[in-house]
Amino acid sequence: MASEYKTMKGQDFDRGAFESLLRRKVFLWQSFEPYGAVKGLFDYGPPLENLEAEVINIWRDHFIRHEKMMALKCSMLTPYEVLKTSGHVEKFADFMCKDPKTGEILRSDHLIKDVIEARLKSDKEARGEKIEETVEDPKKKKKQAKAAKGAVKLDDAVRKEYEHMLATLDDCTGDDMGALIKKHDIRSPITGNEVEPPVSVNLMFQTQIGATGKEPAFLRPETAQGQFLSFQKLLEYSDSQLPMASACIGYSFRNELSPRAGLLRVREFLMAEIEHFVDPESGKRHPKFNSVRDVKLPLLDRKTQNAGDTTPTITTIGEAVDSKLVDNETLGYFLVRIMQFMQKIGIDMTKLRFRQHMANEMAHYAVDCWDCELFSSYGWIECVGCADRSAFDLSVHEKATGTFLKVREPLKEPVKIEEWVAQLDKKKSGPKLKKNQAKVEQTLLGLSQEIKEKLSLEMEKEGKIVVAVEGVEGGKIELDKEIVSIGRETRVESMREYTPNVIEPSFGVGRILYSLMEHVYWTREGDAARSVMSFKPTVAPIKVLVVPLQKDVKFAALMAELEQRLDEEQLAYKVDQSGVSIGKRYSRNDELGIPFGITIDYESLEGKGFTLRERDSTKQVRASMDEILEAVVKMCKGKEAWEGVVKRLPVFEGKEE
Amino acid sequence: MASEYKTMKGQDFDRGAFESLLRRKVFLWQSFEPYGAVKGLFDYGPPLENLEAEVINIWRDHFIRHEKMMALKCSMLTPYEVLKTSGHVEKFADFMCKDPKTGEILRSDHLIKDVIEARLKSDKEARGEKIEETVEDPKKKKKQAKAAKGAVKLDDAVRKEYEHMLATLDDCTGDDMGALIKKHDIRSPITGNEVEPPVSVNLMFQTQIGATGKEPAFLRPETAQGQFLSFQKLLEYSDSQLPMASACIGYSFRNELSPRAGLLRVREFLMAEIEHFVDPESGKRHPKFNSVRDVKLPLLDRKTQNAGDTTPTITTIGEAVDSKLVDNETLGYFLVRIMQFMQKIGIDMTKLRFRQHMANEMAHYAVDCWDCELFSSYGWIECVGCADRSAFDLSVHEKATGTFLKVREPLKEPVKIEEWVAQLDKKKSGPKLKKNQAKVEQTLLGLSQEIKEKLSLEMEKEGKIVVAVEGVEGGKIELDKEIVSIGRETRVESMREYTPNVIEPSFGVGRILYSLMEHVYWTREGDAARSVMSFKPTVAPIKVLVVPLQKDVKFAALMAELEQRLDEEQLAYKVDQSGVSIGKRYSRNDELGIPFGITIDYESLEGKGFTLRERDSTKQVRASMDEILEAVVKMCKGKEAWEGVVKRLPVFEGKEE
Repeated sequence: MASEYKTMKGQDFDRGAFESLLRRKVFLWQSFEPYGAVKGLFDYGPPLENLEAEVINIWRDHFIRHEKMMALKCSMLTPYEVLKTSGHVEKFADFMCKDPKTGEILRSDHLIKDVIEARLKSDKEARGEKIEETVEDPKKKKKQAKAAKGAVKLDDAVRKEYEHMLATLDDCTGDDMGALIKKHDIRSPITGNEVEPPVSVNLMFQTQIGATGKEPAFLRPETAQGQFLSFQKLLEYSDSQLPMASACIGYSFRNELSPRAGLLRVREFLMAEIEHFVDPESGKRHPKFNSVRDVKLPLLDRKTQNAGDTTPTITTIGEAVDSKLVDNETLGYFLVRIMQFMQKIGIDMTKLRFRQHMANEMAHYAVDCWDCELFSSYGWIECVGCADRSAFDLSVHEKATGTFLKVREPLKEPVKIEEWVAQLDKKKSGPKLKKNQAKVEQTLLGLSQEIKEKLSLEMEKEGKIVVAVEGVEGGKIELDKEIVSIGRETRVESMREYTPNVIEPSFGVGRILYSLMEHVYWTREGDAARSVMSFKPTVAPIKVLVVPLQKDVKFAALMAELEQRLDEEQLAYKVDQSGVSIGKRYSRNDELGIPFGITIDYESLEGKGFTLRERDSTKQVRASMDEILEAVVKMCKGKEAWEGVVKRLPVFEGKEE
Repeated sequence: MASEYKTMKGQDFDRGAFESLLRRKVFLWQSFEPYGAVKGLFDYGPPLENLEAEVINIWRDHFIRHEKMMALKCSMLTPYEVLKTSGHVEKFADFMCKDPKTGEILRSDHLIKDVIEARLKSDKEARGEKIEETVEDPKKKKKQAKAAKGAVKLDDAVRKEYEHMLATLDDCTGDDMGALIKKHDIRSPITGNEVEPPVSVNLMFQTQIGATGKEPAFLRPETAQGQFLSFQKLLEYSDSQLPMASACIGYSFRNELSPRAGLLRVREFLMAEIEHFVDPESGKRHPKFNSVRDVKLPLLDRKTQNAGDTTPTITTIGEAVDSKLVDNETLGYFLVRIMQFMQKIGIDMTKLRFRQHMANEMAHYAVDCWDCELFSSYGWIECVGCADRSAFDLSVHEKATGTFLKVREPLKEPVKIEEWVAQLDKKKSGPKLKKNQAKVEQTLLGLSQEIKEKLSLEMEKEGKIVVAVEGVEGGKIELDKEIVSIGRETRVESMREYTPNVIEPSFGVGRILYSLMEHVYWTREGDAARSVMSFKPTVAPIKVLVVPLQKDVKFAALMAELEQRLDEEQLAYKVDQSGVSIGKRYSRNDELGIPFGITIDYESLEGKGFTLRERDSTKQVRASMDEILEAVVKMCKGKEAWEGVVKRLPVFEGKEE
């Protein structure tokens, strides 16, 4: 049940007008415009770059400092072998179909989904059924519209088959999809051409390190692998105490084949990823869980989605974890902290939900996964993934490199272990086995308990055993009881070794920034041309607009004093002394989201203070420079709200236009 | 005249011990260690990552906010064409020689320099001359030692030739170097093998955008090009008012073929680059120059270097610009601001100098260039380049793309311009020229004043002219006076168009951080094992160490209160409650550079406050929690010094060990 996207004031959202503002005020643009602009690459101009810096600083404070996470910076260039082990070489790929006549490349799953959804919709139309609005992306709607050919009724069996296809599409291989495309005559919705069969295309940018050609490498698709490979350093730094968490703010890359949807699908993007390492036997409890237990979250769980519903349930995280809706305390704690972060930066809380991954959405090793989704004119968009990656990554890297990537900790109580042991008498076996001795010893050590037990019976019976040993002549070797003893032995184990599990909140910074910009955008009542970006003072790219009433040298000295004071307070400010009216100057700077304006007028020259104007309400107070600066500093640090300032300082009833 | 590098306390610097500290405290390491570590790629651990974040925030405040620069974020992935135009495809390359037997790759200029310097040194030895110590890199020394074969006297003529070679090496082409290597039998100093002739190898990482193969791209070698291509947006944002400056903090890449010298030569590095656009006819004056006129800088100019001296002159920037030692006010202003930034982050001012580029070091388009160099155990290292790039970049991109990359501004006084004009009578010429009319018109417009003057004489004489026109049959066309008139005309020009010049301060963040770490490192008198990193409180990665006297549940409540207060003040802190003595705990955390320690002891439980310990002096004061927190907050914001705190609060004479 999707609703049309509305602004924070409940107005219809005009994406054209919004995008025009972003362009006009130089928030962002496609990179390399003079060279024809590259899809999926964006440059940020001053308003967005500064917004990002503010948001990142809040993220650092909220997560890294407050949670005592270990900040890491890992390399973007990543050797082939690392991403081979992590599975990205094989699996970080999309199946693509080429339109042979135009050369256009279509994602195979998107192609099938677009065409089949369109046919189902047209079937419903033909049957006179109500059409559920499940598609939120206007561009997708257009594609579907093209793919549909009016109201065409399908056979009941075909309709069932189509519905089943959509439900199971995520589990299809490339060949499966190829068969579906052929069987159902699925063609490019744009040209109507038949397409070539799906081929797998890796989505990483490839390059090479050095000039020898011996070091193939990729630009990383996520920051996580660098963090896993730093595991030993992290453990050292935290004195081997778990839980521990690392955090990395850095760029990742995805060579999208046909990027669309602006900032939501880009080829180069900033991520902020946390890897929280826990002992799997601890039940993944979190020491601070009780402090957030009563916080309520909008949770859209798997069951609800399966029932075709998209209404989240508002639940306290305590209940959600108690009922196992959310798998464990650590995951639950992070969901709350993610929501609190979003609130801090000014995300509209009515446009936020947590959606649980469906079973087929998760990586095969993942235990549970919740996305924090933000609602925008593109629909609900995943902005933070919060997954339990289990012990997968550390295990595969350990296996591939032989590096010890486990935690070793003393057991509280040493435990006695009784087990089968096969032991070589080195003195006696040396002359007999000669150069094979080490190999035999290695083989015996590696035998399982079951095999050792069998061999002990064989030894008892025959007085000798035959063991397969790699690398010896004939591939096996006979060992008699003179040189090998097999029996039950008891040893005391005082250490425990385990691979930690990892819970990973992963933030897509660009998507969050884009959603934030949509969330704070609105237009003044009765004048759609006067738009406002209501950034919170804590994140606003510029904090203060300074406007002298008009161009007059009399203001110069006071202006200089005010500017110096703003500089000393480290407030980013802008001066607008162009010739137009004060109202117009405020209005055009509202588009930059500057929260506060200070006006210098002729009364200021008489020592009667300045006016301080708040962007959203356009209300003003009049006070001394000291009082105004104190209020602005407090509000920009989030330590006072405008509502408080209005109560403290005398309201000024000037007209703005 | 190089001096041996000493610590801030004048002690001999032990690089081994220093590097061991960096490893032990997880400041940094080579990336991907479990996979064998990749040269030239480094990961930062928590201390260095946080240090970088603090330094970047100071940079943002010092430059972007204070100077009202326009912050930009530009893409790292850069299309081939952009870097073709900028000259990087052709010139961002090194000549390399391969050792055919080992496959090792040597930079040709380094190879020649190493070998010839070694021969000259050995000659001096043979002649009994004093050997000037010009080599500061210990690894290089080792190479030279290998290349030299004891004391071998050279012919006077050969010696002269060698000296000339070194002086002119930077101007050599690859072929030149190949000839030198052959003529002087220059071999690998490591193996003694003959090497293959120099080949040019581009140092950019290459990749491709999309899957079509039609969009070759590089990882950018500098952030500058993205800024130049954003020129129109910048101009828009600043209402076409120059001077204006953009700033970009971002990663650049250089595919070093054999990286060495740790953090000083890496393949992936953070830069902070400013592009300051000025009107070349303004004399490159800077509006704030007078505010820094009297600041003194250590300047090592070209003349001094030519005389073989390396002692900088301490001069005020006012004098330096007046005497044209530094080319202009803008360059001068930035030199001062760079120095002030270095001071803010804690660089040792006795280990900083500005060195002017020699004529052959500069890019061909550069007007003047000064490097801010920091002294470390690797010698004097360029950490900031401050170059005047003139109008080069904007001009070449405009030429390549046809995009208007100039400033257009109204002239104060419109000017009358008298000039030759050749005009086509369109009505009459239409029937005669037909489809060629537009081409002819274009050609006539493009003719120079000289040619028009000649043609006017021809027309007067012959009554017709012959003009070469591209794309018409025969390549030229006859035009009679019926359809073309040529004469002197006067027009009034009210606009001026010009390409701004660019002054570019470019910061290598990794090099600055490395130098900073060396500058603040020292060891306690009498105990070389107790090392200290004296980070300023403003940049220290962790601000406070909390140490309860010993493990005792009685401290729990006070600890919790203190931790909450530290959190509220947004101070990064660390708790060390391990069993060892307080002295040991302080001492091992001095290695992390934590400036302040708060001890909770039994007197704290009696309401007698806490002790606050300062890292460098190890002095302590005793005061209430409020007083201590107030002092720490002020010191971490740079608003109070420890010297002041000691005067305000009662000194505590506890012993530390």
